[in-house]
Amino acid sequence: MIVVAPDAERSAIGHAITTTLPLRVQEFRRGDEVMGFASNGTPADCVKIAVRALLDAPPDLVVSGINRGSNMGTNVIYSGTVSAATEARILGIPSLAVSLDTHGSADWTYAAVVARRLAARVLEHGLPPRVLLNVNVPNLPPGRIRGLRITRQGDSRFVEEFVVREDPRHRPYYWLTGAYEVNDADPETDGWAVANGYVSVTPISFDLTAHAARAELAGWDLDA
Amino acid sequence: MIVVAPDAERSAIGHAITTTLPLRVQEFRRGDEVMGFASNGTPADCVKIAVRALLDAPPDLVVSGINRGSNMGTNVIYSGTVSAATEARILGIPSLAVSLDTHGSADWTYAAVVARRLAARVLEHGLPPRVLLNVNVPNLPPGRIRGLRITRQGDSRFVEEFVVREDPRHRPYYWLTGAYEVNDADPETDGWAVANGYVSVTPISFDLTAHAARAELAGWDLDA
Repeated sequence: MIVVAPDAERSAIGHAITTTLPLRVQEFRRGDEVMGFASNGTPADCVKIAVRALLDAPPDLVVSGINRGSNMGTNVIYSGTVSAATEARILGIPSLAVSLDTHGSADWTYAAVVARRLAARVLEHGLPPRVLLNVNVPNLPPGRIRGLRITRQGDSRFVEEFVVREDPRHRPYYWLTGAYEVNDADPETDGWAVANGYVSVTPISFDLTAHAARAELAGWDLDA
Repeated sequence: MIVVAPDAERSAIGHAITTTLPLRVQEFRRGDEVMGFASNGTPADCVKIAVRALLDAPPDLVVSGINRGSNMGTNVIYSGTVSAATEARILGIPSLAVSLDTHGSADWTYAAVVARRLAARVLEHGLPPRVLLNVNVPNLPPGRIRGLRITRQGDSRFVEEFVVREDPRHRPYYWLTGAYEVNDADPETDGWAVANGYVSVTPISFDLTAHAARAELAGWDLDA
């Protein structure tokens, strides 16, 4: 196993990639063995540079995470953790993103067990083209985890507000803040599963096409 | 119409949002009239701060772009232009992203005509929940545009390489480079449409769930 990770937190970086600055990479060794690399890039950059420049051969599997904090509902699109796994899948490598549902004290043990088990299943079965797994684990002792559910991406999201402050030169600046709004009453959703003690596994894709909407648009008079 | 835009290019920023730094906003006026705002944030930040802090009321429609350079195929996920439109749709506002297929000399006139026409259609018909339009316009004189196609997101993508250089202190750095690989022989795709002189309109969504894959995963022995 090789770790390639950003050299600092990259929360809410989404699927950003770095094109206007060069990337730096720092290698970490234990004796003669390469343990991993730290990069000044984004999570998606880390996967690109690992596969294209750092590793001798593409990995069999990319596991992104374990992230502190869930990546569920609408928030999935802001997630660097998910984007790194997506990047791997774009490169043809099976992948999963794993997140632990806490911003406080974390017990990573069970999430690691789940990640290892799912990794084995992915290697065993393969994944459909363009599909990867987005895994969210409740921050509970193993004995209180109720099982695992195959879910869909829910509707929970961060509802933003901006706090306006004034700097010492009397010029305003804006801090993004807000609250997480839970809209997942449906037991099929990732949010419901985790809130109810289940590990959530959502198969996701980077094909964003809203296929059902294509027929509707065809009825519009678009050429006029 | 109000313009809220990043204060410099934000290529390949994807759906990044700014949570660890405050945002600055510069207002532009013509006489008493507010023409727009420039922000140090990402395209998605611009939509958030416009709707939540700068505008008196939410807009009826958000048009993101016109971007120099297409946003099609796999590359859609890296696009700040598309992410700004997505952000609007998350906030419940109908939206479209418009990109012009050139990195060289651009004639924006026809793309603007298309944007205006599609904006009118969106206001007239509304959009399905969670769906927005990703519009790509060929860089051709209007007389050579063959029409408009409702497409799906294709498979074309940027295939990366990294160029390694050495800085004056003999430390390596890596530049992301590569070539755009066209995989869109299917006339249903965005890439085919634009390459063949059509305006491409792809309905896209921020529900990433790979619904077809859920049944397949249910057959795996995931709890064991």
